[in-house]
Amino acid sequence: MTLSMYQASVPVFLRALSNLQHVLRKGEAHAEARKYDPTLLLQGRLTVDMLPLTRQVQIATDMAKNGCARLAGVDPLKFEDNETSFAELHARIDRAVEYIKSFKAAQIDGSETRAVTIKTRSGEQHFEGEGYLLHFVIPNLFFHCTTAYAILREAGADLGKIDFIGKS
Amino acid sequence: MTLSMYQASVPVFLRALSNLQHVLRKGEAHAEARKYDPTLLLQGRLTVDMLPLTRQVQIATDMAKNGCARLAGVDPLKFEDNETSFAELHARIDRAVEYIKSFKAAQIDGSETRAVTIKTRSGEQHFEGEGYLLHFVIPNLFFHCTTAYAILREAGADLGKIDFIGKS
Repeated sequence: MTLSMYQASVPVFLRALSNLQHVLRKGEAHAEARKYDPTLLLQGRLTVDMLPLTRQVQIATDMAKNGCARLAGVDPLKFEDNETSFAELHARIDRAVEYIKSFKAAQIDGSETRAVTIKTRSGEQHFEGEGYLLHFVIPNLFFHCTTAYAILREAGADLGKIDFIGKS
Repeated sequence: MTLSMYQASVPVFLRALSNLQHVLRKGEAHAEARKYDPTLLLQGRLTVDMLPLTRQVQIATDMAKNGCARLAGVDPLKFEDNETSFAELHARIDRAVEYIKSFKAAQIDGSETRAVTIKTRSGEQHFEGEGYLLHFVIPNLFFHCTTAYAILREAGADLGKIDFIGKS
């Protein structure tokens, strides 16, 4: 079987989000073992002008769910960005996973040259599907998953790179 | 044109390494502006039991150069891991880029099911080419590029996510 846009997106997103949930669970367990409120971790930042853990998780899920939708040529489902607990972040990820799994290969395959336009703080960005996936969505997804991992690892959670990558 | 193993690897690696060089240059410039020796940054770590900046850059280049070689079914070129300055890290990345560019699409295309075996601290890991690229090399590459970025950003370098992602 040759590589397809579906194979290069959906399974990558699902695995990244599954590993992110595993990393979050280890972070929460660390707080509980130390007998402090795990929600304190949600505002943790690597440095003062970087986004807190909650936003890292929100953006990672957005990258994955919006990535699928835009490759499929449909308007992405919007989430409200109102999570205030680990349980709510897990529910958000679960909801994104369910949404991502709803896309069929036939909707995403063949999207290499599909026009994708996204709105950013600096204006509109225009891509073709392949560049959008490989040079925008995937690097962004792993940037935010890595940063979430790093926030929890700096906070003392029992994490190693295998928790981020997952077992093969 | 449909997505290919070459398109999903070589351009992704080259872009990640180019952005990493850009991030390193901003880190070095920050040290110079603060009038301290930039090589002090090379031992910077996010937390005490994470690898320092030099190792993050070494592993990122290894992921990319070894990724190409293994997908192509050849033994990866080995680097010595002896860099002690920003200039030497840039030379390492330049050398990796030159090596990555030496692979032709015909060597990497069709590697979806090629058997790939890597040796890790925990033993041998066996992959098929597609899983090796999508679920091991790419997440690892971006993990180490993100961590390098985060070390320099925590140190005060003038960095934003656009420096990591690159302009589209």
